[in-house]
Amino acid sequence: MKTIILTIDDIRHIVNKVSLNGLMDEMIRRLTESFATYQPANYVCPPRAGFTYSEPHTGLVEWMPIMESGEQATIKVVSYHPANPDLHQLPTILATTSAYDTANGHLIGIADSTFLTAIRTGAASAVASRLLAKPGGGIVGLIGAGAQAITQLHALTRVMDVEKVLVFDIDPKTSNSFPERSGFMGIPVKTYAQSELDQLVQTADILCTATSNDVGAGAVFNDVVSKSWLHVNAVGSDFPGKTEVPLSFLQRSVVVPDFPEQAMKEGECQQIDPEQVGPSLVELVKRPLFHQYLQTTTTVFDSTGWALEDQIALNMMMDYAADLKIGHFLQIEGNSADPKDPFQFLKSKPKTIHQNGSLNGIKNGVVNGRYATQPS
Amino acid sequence: MKTIILTIDDIRHIVNKVSLNGLMDEMIRRLTESFATYQPANYVCPPRAGFTYSEPHTGLVEWMPIMESGEQATIKVVSYHPANPDLHQLPTILATTSAYDTANGHLIGIADSTFLTAIRTGAASAVASRLLAKPGGGIVGLIGAGAQAITQLHALTRVMDVEKVLVFDIDPKTSNSFPERSGFMGIPVKTYAQSELDQLVQTADILCTATSNDVGAGAVFNDVVSKSWLHVNAVGSDFPGKTEVPLSFLQRSVVVPDFPEQAMKEGECQQIDPEQVGPSLVELVKRPLFHQYLQTTTTVFDSTGWALEDQIALNMMMDYAADLKIGHFLQIEGNSADPKDPFQFLKSKPKTIHQNGSLNGIKNGVVNGRYATQPS
Repeated sequence: MKTIILTIDDIRHIVNKVSLNGLMDEMIRRLTESFATYQPANYVCPPRAGFTYSEPHTGLVEWMPIMESGEQATIKVVSYHPANPDLHQLPTILATTSAYDTANGHLIGIADSTFLTAIRTGAASAVASRLLAKPGGGIVGLIGAGAQAITQLHALTRVMDVEKVLVFDIDPKTSNSFPERSGFMGIPVKTYAQSELDQLVQTADILCTATSNDVGAGAVFNDVVSKSWLHVNAVGSDFPGKTEVPLSFLQRSVVVPDFPEQAMKEGECQQIDPEQVGPSLVELVKRPLFHQYLQTTTTVFDSTGWALEDQIALNMMMDYAADLKIGHFLQIEGNSADPKDPFQFLKSKPKTIHQNGSLNGIKNGVVNGRYATQPS
Repeated sequence: MKTIILTIDDIRHIVNKVSLNGLMDEMIRRLTESFATYQPANYVCPPRAGFTYSEPHTGLVEWMPIMESGEQATIKVVSYHPANPDLHQLPTILATTSAYDTANGHLIGIADSTFLTAIRTGAASAVASRLLAKPGGGIVGLIGAGAQAITQLHALTRVMDVEKVLVFDIDPKTSNSFPERSGFMGIPVKTYAQSELDQLVQTADILCTATSNDVGAGAVFNDVVSKSWLHVNAVGSDFPGKTEVPLSFLQRSVVVPDFPEQAMKEGECQQIDPEQVGPSLVELVKRPLFHQYLQTTTTVFDSTGWALEDQIALNMMMDYAADLKIGHFLQIEGNSADPKDPFQFLKSKPKTIHQNGSLNGIKNGVVNGRYATQPS
């Protein structure tokens, strides 16, 4: 059986077909639907694990596995190398996600997930903000104005009216390039200097923190007097010791984790006692009216990034690929007619001889239904 | 940067070029060399973990990560579905291995590993047998005559003279098809019935157990009076509770694990006390003369499958691919010129429009040096 590979060109092609707004709307819709019907007994989601190192540069490679019982296993491998933009002209985060059929272990598909990670992280904040922020929208503050800030803002614009956006980044170049990078959304941007950060926090109705704050570096903003309904999407904390939100703000707010077990190890929740942790995003989506009172208090969405979101994002792209007849199909795995003979496949004639730049018998294929694979 | 994908066709093409004997010899050479120079401080190898389930069929999907510090991280994802041959005409084991550059997190390559797993498992037994079995060779007994048995025997034939091979499988069809499947090696085969199993054990100089024995099912042979130098390669035990060798045989023998921490959880070593565990295969390879006396006693190589072996196997294939100009290069990951703009890649023109079966701008490329990737 073949494996579908969605390259970055394939993903570009899909987004160009369905539009960025259409994609974000669909991601928000699928997340909401999956959270509303989520049954913990149907999933196994071990904590992510990985390698961290400081040579040759500070970095990590980690894997985030999840299994939907009787359906599929999904593993995202994500790496984080803060020196990438400067040294390699590469994104800080590189990621690919793979899906496996639990009926037989077949690798169904693999796709780039750097872009999908940003999309699903934005979409999750939109789902949380729709339920936790002041209804109707308002002013969005962004602390950290890199790639994640763009998708945070974009996702928010899809579920509320964003009047304007207030931007701060420790690197003024990043602040200054934000208006151009976010221009397609048509939201007025005001950039703030470090000395004006308290003002930004005081003015915002919704705040998104998406920084590369160092482990142990403390909060990225001061707990000044904010609007009494301020909602914070805390996106950057994803590692033991790495947090963004002041403890005092967490303690006077309701903290909603995406994936509680993980958030207590790696998110803002690690700063507070387990008894202080609020309802999870899933609980919120399942009972929105019950939790409506949270819109009038200060709240924090503790977004550490959940493998379920990655599975939903990958399946969405594979569905689009099927509809649009996009993607590369390769017979990666062995498929011996005699499973007891590891060398049997050597006797088959290769369909094409591929050498010296000739093409390799790769074809696009129509996939029928939900990320189905072609029979080989 | 592009990712090299080695499909099963690519692997066939490589093996047809270098020959099965050449590939096995090179795998044995690389394993021996890597074990001889292995420094534990240079590697991080967490225990493998995975999902096990009984619906829709009994199966597991597990990941085996390893990192060579400052070099690469490697993750094999391997699945085991015993019903695959009957239900899907697929191998019981499906596997792919991916390599990541720890300098920047880039996915260097991905390849089928069903075949490579069989090759490296055979090669590891050959390395062990060369050091632990009676010098010169002799009679090989195989308990379990499936895919792994073929590569066990093939690897042994590359390091010693195999006079004949005695074969038993609980499925007589598997025993009966063994002569044809192993015919290319030119070794005389004698098949044994269940009632003759003790005789097989008594006659063998080297025994390989490679069964799908059930968890808790007990040993796959009786501890009868064997040759005083009998060496056993126990290949099938790879799961808590799943073992193949009688406890009494383990207790009167020197047990050599491939990866001691794992073998004590999942291998034959789980049956014995930690103090009873012998030198590891690495220790053996590093000091072969010191351990030469083991050739006159009964010994067990407890082969649970080590991620380092998978990394060595993948790197070998990527090196062959580079030399032979074989492989598929795809730009899977995003490579935005502006790492702070997750949507920047959408503005690039796709190089080819790929729809309705047209080809996708995939090309073979020359890779220079050790599994180098093409600049994108």
